[in-house]
Amino acid sequence: MEKTLEVAKTLTTKLANLSPKVKNSLLEKMSKDILKNKEEILKANEKDLKEAEKNSLPEALVERLKLDEDRILDMANSILEIAKLNEPLGRVLEGWVNSDGLRIEKVSIPIGVIGIIYESRPNVTADSAALCIKSGNIAILKGGKEAKHSNSIIAKTLQDSIKKFDLNPNIITLLEDREDVAKLIKQDKFVDLIIPRGGAKLIEYITKNSTVPVVKHDKGLCHIFIDKSANFNEAVKIVKNAKCQRPGVCNALETLLIHEEIAKDILPMVYEELKKEGCEFFGCENAQKIVKISSANEDSFHTEYLSKTLNIKIVKDVNEAIYHIQKYGSGHSDSILTYDLTNAELFLNSVDSSVVYLNASTRFTDGGVFGFGAEIGISTNKLHARGPMGINDLCTYKYKIYGSGQIRE
Amino acid sequence: MEKTLEVAKTLTTKLANLSPKVKNSLLEKMSKDILKNKEEILKANEKDLKEAEKNSLPEALVERLKLDEDRILDMANSILEIAKLNEPLGRVLEGWVNSDGLRIEKVSIPIGVIGIIYESRPNVTADSAALCIKSGNIAILKGGKEAKHSNSIIAKTLQDSIKKFDLNPNIITLLEDREDVAKLIKQDKFVDLIIPRGGAKLIEYITKNSTVPVVKHDKGLCHIFIDKSANFNEAVKIVKNAKCQRPGVCNALETLLIHEEIAKDILPMVYEELKKEGCEFFGCENAQKIVKISSANEDSFHTEYLSKTLNIKIVKDVNEAIYHIQKYGSGHSDSILTYDLTNAELFLNSVDSSVVYLNASTRFTDGGVFGFGAEIGISTNKLHARGPMGINDLCTYKYKIYGSGQIRE
Repeated sequence: MEKTLEVAKTLTTKLANLSPKVKNSLLEKMSKDILKNKEEILKANEKDLKEAEKNSLPEALVERLKLDEDRILDMANSILEIAKLNEPLGRVLEGWVNSDGLRIEKVSIPIGVIGIIYESRPNVTADSAALCIKSGNIAILKGGKEAKHSNSIIAKTLQDSIKKFDLNPNIITLLEDREDVAKLIKQDKFVDLIIPRGGAKLIEYITKNSTVPVVKHDKGLCHIFIDKSANFNEAVKIVKNAKCQRPGVCNALETLLIHEEIAKDILPMVYEELKKEGCEFFGCENAQKIVKISSANEDSFHTEYLSKTLNIKIVKDVNEAIYHIQKYGSGHSDSILTYDLTNAELFLNSVDSSVVYLNASTRFTDGGVFGFGAEIGISTNKLHARGPMGINDLCTYKYKIYGSGQIRE
Repeated sequence: MEKTLEVAKTLTTKLANLSPKVKNSLLEKMSKDILKNKEEILKANEKDLKEAEKNSLPEALVERLKLDEDRILDMANSILEIAKLNEPLGRVLEGWVNSDGLRIEKVSIPIGVIGIIYESRPNVTADSAALCIKSGNIAILKGGKEAKHSNSIIAKTLQDSIKKFDLNPNIITLLEDREDVAKLIKQDKFVDLIIPRGGAKLIEYITKNSTVPVVKHDKGLCHIFIDKSANFNEAVKIVKNAKCQRPGVCNALETLLIHEEIAKDILPMVYEELKKEGCEFFGCENAQKIVKISSANEDSFHTEYLSKTLNIKIVKDVNEAIYHIQKYGSGHSDSILTYDLTNAELFLNSVDSSVVYLNASTRFTDGGVFGFGAEIGISTNKLHARGPMGINDLCTYKYKIYGSGQIRE
């Protein structure tokens, strides 16, 4: 492991200084080679699916794991889209001349060596490798063991493309052993960043044990607060969209907060509409007085269901809503539905989640929707990157200072 | 400890939303109160100095610890300067309308609760508190035990100023026990960032054990490479400035690299000039053939002397210089002296230290010099902030999204 990473580290300078044209041609080649190797990739995926069946993997995971012709085409297209993104390196983020006459430029550069730890979806292997190459970073990939055959052939395909460009194929490395995670997160000498994507346990384990800085893609416990002055029809549509359009994702709604003065009117509307979609509900005492739903407890409000289940709580006002979100939220995405300017501003300024919304569904927290193109994940960190992480968030910066003999007095 | 931090966390929203006018008046009050309490502060410092004498603290540390009227005036002025900085919160860093018609704003906000761990200098207590208040962050301060009486009275003075503004004085908290550090760095539930400033052992301990993200102020092992085409007179002045102007600081020079083709001419000039300043030298074999100096070994090149000691190594070309810096450097500040455009670009692009210089002394790596005003430290991290950390680096951001009923299709 240490040997592998030491080699990886030595490749950073060359990759960082590759011309955008060469990088983009390489990505185009990778995209083509993925399509060319379609049959082999499907065969490997078949092996993973058989083992999944043998191990009785949950259906949701099997669905994520499964590849078909369309998904391989998507994978290839996604690499092409990444090739088309604006060059992320060498952007002058700021520049000025100081009082000594030094010309100071703050310039975007790669982070260096990035370890990405993920589960199930084999397309993450291709996406992560492509995003890292585009941003000049060495990618150390560790996929889930359930996808090992698929990930292995995808990584091999990409490495073969790299070889044809006379580059060292180890600019991307796929780790195969489960024990590799424990080792990887201790290699702060060679690894600059760990990005874990996965279940709560994985994230917690890595946060507690990593000596390498971590940008985590943690849970999304998202809230919507329907204020007194909300537009009811708009509110019902937004809540339905946030809860039901794709309940298994991190930007889906988990807890609905409703202003007490309108609860009697709006809650039955929400309830009817979501029941049609097959939703289950857990509510506070006051909510239970209005609609027939199960009783929510302290645990309910801490739960990221990732299914068609919704918590409902009646609150006194926007302040109680903010308090609830600060206490139970995960700092991901939270929305207020209101046409009261004071409450809108109070909510947007006080809730310190990575994305706060006014009159919109939480489902928009997404790199594509933001216009970033492919995303490496959605950060729930406070530092370095928050919310959807696009290609620019895989960069750091350095100061380049141009002098003409200056010394400090 | 947990109780203290839980209280601190609840204060974040109020502090984040304080008006700039109130914050600046508070800082002005703090500055005045520091001056008003001058006698008490000097008395407390006297106690620390007596204990320092009893414990035979090294002279350099005593020098840092010592306060006098001038230093207290500097401390008060520094708080005033921080008050005068541009408001760091609420800056719209980017803003656009996406294809759904959502208005997206990326806005600067406070990080939250920041733990700052430092040594000796009591003025860091006042500076850190003021920088945190200005940037809307709760400050958890842990100074060195050698400065405990000074830090305690300074913190109490500042807390008294805060009380007069009807604010909770716990927006700054001074931890007093040595064991507090070990506890603090495990409180990821309440603390958002740890900034350690101090010796290598402290930094290493915190990096290895913290579950809270760390932005470290690590060692500065800075290099200058004199290329073949350097201007000799300029080079001698710059090397002398970088090594001798203030050898005890992190941006001072530790290792000088010289192109082999000019070593015979420039090395004696450097040697004579620095010897006059009282410098000692360790050199590679080839350097020892030119001037009478001690022999450098592998350890020498890893050493941050923080004194008038200099390593000298003759290298074949700019590539060997870059290789040496990547191997032995600490990613702080490195400079090339050259008038060859190709070599200048190669060096500036390949050395990935936080600050890279062309024809200037490494001593310019400093928040004041950069025009940032007061600095909280110099980051040797790859993520979040690199190089001099000004007030804006104590901020993170969130996305505020303004909709009008949008749902995701």
